[in-house]
Amino acid sequence: MAKRKAGEGYSRKHKVTVIGSGNWGSAISKIIGENTLAHPYLFEPEVKMWVYEEDYQVPSSHPKYSPSEHSKPQKLTALINSLHENVKYLPNIPLPPNVQATPDIRDAVHNATILIFNVPHQFVPNIIRQMKGAYLPYARAVSCIKGVDVSAEGISLFSDYIGKHLGIYCGALSGANIATEVAEEKFSETTVAYNPHGDLTPPPEDLAPVDHEILKHLFHRPYFHVRVISDVAGVSLGGALKNVVAIAAGFVDGLGWGDNAKAAIMRVGLMEMQKFGTKYFSETCRTETFTEESCGVADLITSCNGGRNHRCAKLSVEQGKTIEEVERETLNGQKLQGTSTAREVNQFLSARGEEHEFPLFTAVFNILEGKAKVMHPDFCYQRNNTDCNLQVEDLPGLIERD
Amino acid sequence: MAKRKAGEGYSRKHKVTVIGSGNWGSAISKIIGENTLAHPYLFEPEVKMWVYEEDYQVPSSHPKYSPSEHSKPQKLTALINSLHENVKYLPNIPLPPNVQATPDIRDAVHNATILIFNVPHQFVPNIIRQMKGAYLPYARAVSCIKGVDVSAEGISLFSDYIGKHLGIYCGALSGANIATEVAEEKFSETTVAYNPHGDLTPPPEDLAPVDHEILKHLFHRPYFHVRVISDVAGVSLGGALKNVVAIAAGFVDGLGWGDNAKAAIMRVGLMEMQKFGTKYFSETCRTETFTEESCGVADLITSCNGGRNHRCAKLSVEQGKTIEEVERETLNGQKLQGTSTAREVNQFLSARGEEHEFPLFTAVFNILEGKAKVMHPDFCYQRNNTDCNLQVEDLPGLIERD
Repeated sequence: MAKRKAGEGYSRKHKVTVIGSGNWGSAISKIIGENTLAHPYLFEPEVKMWVYEEDYQVPSSHPKYSPSEHSKPQKLTALINSLHENVKYLPNIPLPPNVQATPDIRDAVHNATILIFNVPHQFVPNIIRQMKGAYLPYARAVSCIKGVDVSAEGISLFSDYIGKHLGIYCGALSGANIATEVAEEKFSETTVAYNPHGDLTPPPEDLAPVDHEILKHLFHRPYFHVRVISDVAGVSLGGALKNVVAIAAGFVDGLGWGDNAKAAIMRVGLMEMQKFGTKYFSETCRTETFTEESCGVADLITSCNGGRNHRCAKLSVEQGKTIEEVERETLNGQKLQGTSTAREVNQFLSARGEEHEFPLFTAVFNILEGKAKVMHPDFCYQRNNTDCNLQVEDLPGLIERD
Repeated sequence: MAKRKAGEGYSRKHKVTVIGSGNWGSAISKIIGENTLAHPYLFEPEVKMWVYEEDYQVPSSHPKYSPSEHSKPQKLTALINSLHENVKYLPNIPLPPNVQATPDIRDAVHNATILIFNVPHQFVPNIIRQMKGAYLPYARAVSCIKGVDVSAEGISLFSDYIGKHLGIYCGALSGANIATEVAEEKFSETTVAYNPHGDLTPPPEDLAPVDHEILKHLFHRPYFHVRVISDVAGVSLGGALKNVVAIAAGFVDGLGWGDNAKAAIMRVGLMEMQKFGTKYFSETCRTETFTEESCGVADLITSCNGGRNHRCAKLSVEQGKTIEEVERETLNGQKLQGTSTAREVNQFLSARGEEHEFPLFTAVFNILEGKAKVMHPDFCYQRNNTDCNLQVEDLPGLIERD
């Protein structure tokens, strides 16, 4: 029996909307726009992209600047739709013309069968409130929002939050994906997790149920390779916890401990990520999500080799400042994810009396809190300086104390 | 019942010899020398280190240079024993005084119960020939020699070769261990694999059988964390195959494909390493050795971030030269492991018609052989240049073609 082509036998096509238009949201919209055109038997061509409306003045140096049209600030949505480019957040990258920006969230999600969330996480509650009654009850969602919401009470995945508050199912996408590189069509991989369960409104009979194959068609490009798995918790945790490890790797680089030590810290960090996932999400989380997928080991490698958490931690050691000082001085108002995640994870672990089971996460927290110091091993270890709280034994010791 | 301390109840102590005195051999001798002193109930203090004898002229700039003693070239062994430093291969690192250099392999192995091999692999057959009749039949060995011997016929581990030809058991040690960093006591981790089997001469009753605990005491230092496992094949393969992946990562860096692509290539490479091990050494090889141990993921990270295979591959793309040209121009007569391993692995795979199952290993081989070209994706992919053999799809496509 010949295999059925994805979507075959269904007369209706999926209509896809992207909620968000930062650099990552715009890069994902570009991919989605390309794929809805590439697979017309599965998807409606038009992709709506919800944009947080603002006025923007196109700089006169921009290649598409026209003195007659751009002499004054204009609405960002109007600029995106006329120039087919997000001139503010993803400049110089052409967007497919079928990507249509809209400032109206209710218009954006109207009739959409697949919703892609790609906004800063703090915007989610308000967006969801505004969506009430405007979206299809049988829509399905995928969250590209990195991270998880961890507190002493527990861990909540953004995908679960979205799904619960909309009453629909929401999966997750995460990977070693620096947005500008993806937008420039430099090769990368990503991981999509999707595993619908529970009491969901079924799609109408003429619409193909969203499954791994449809999601692969929606996200996969020649330059953006997608693997679809079922472990939503693992994919979401990978994107959050890697930032804590990147801070540790940044400390090690700042200390000049060398490549061996950095690789050791990354290995230990990867093991703690995996342990955290499989211990606290034991029903769904798989070891392989961390050790084998783009959202795990690959994203960790990218983050430890030049991500902003790594860079700020490295600078903090080199310049003898706190990481918050470096953050203020270099990030222009943006916030590090890794420091807040390290604190949230510690709250969660200490509420359970299980900090000692995650020595690397705990060491990072203690250093951030000023309870331990980062110092050079020449000083700490070799000269047995007892004035130093963090010995060479500590940071990685971490692994096993003996 | 209280746990017995390692070695408790045995009157005889282990006598340890290191065969080899390059920079890695000397760094390991330093560790072993420190540990035989630290655990006197288990080990004899004296550690013999076999040195390939040569004459060496101490440079007058060396801190230990004495005009009266060092005006002429001297025997390297004599210099090591008087200065307690391998002035030629590991300068400026003090060796413990209980490490005694000897040029005589038969003297070195005489009465040794544990033999550590740490020489370039091509020296092994000759050393083994010279050892005939001089070593204890119940001695046990550990090989620190990176790599494996792969050919169309099959794969032979250096540890198996040593074990078979000496008629003793030989384990392996491998990890993210740049020798000079280990010598400087910068933190690192390593993996020791040991799993004796078959018909071995048992040790005398007054000598503790070599086991994981004894090996941990022999190698573990505060700055050198050791995990002892049983997967000798995995440990050995990790140290060999990572060099092929490092070449691919070097190509990607040379092409300027960015961090996402590099992380993707490393992830795919790690998966191929794991598949190779578990497919061809299915009885002993474990997935976790690659994804969780220092000899796997951590060593791969180190090698892809600055190892010599990576560096030469990167330069070859940047300068438009073959990797052999770069090797000749920059390595001063030394040879890259990765290129020969890539060719041997290809011989092995093509003899079995299984090249297609390892697309990354095969792509590296094809590029080395001039059957495929490495080109910049701007040229290959985005402009659809059909003149280019290696498209952006290829190198990583590699992963799955669809």
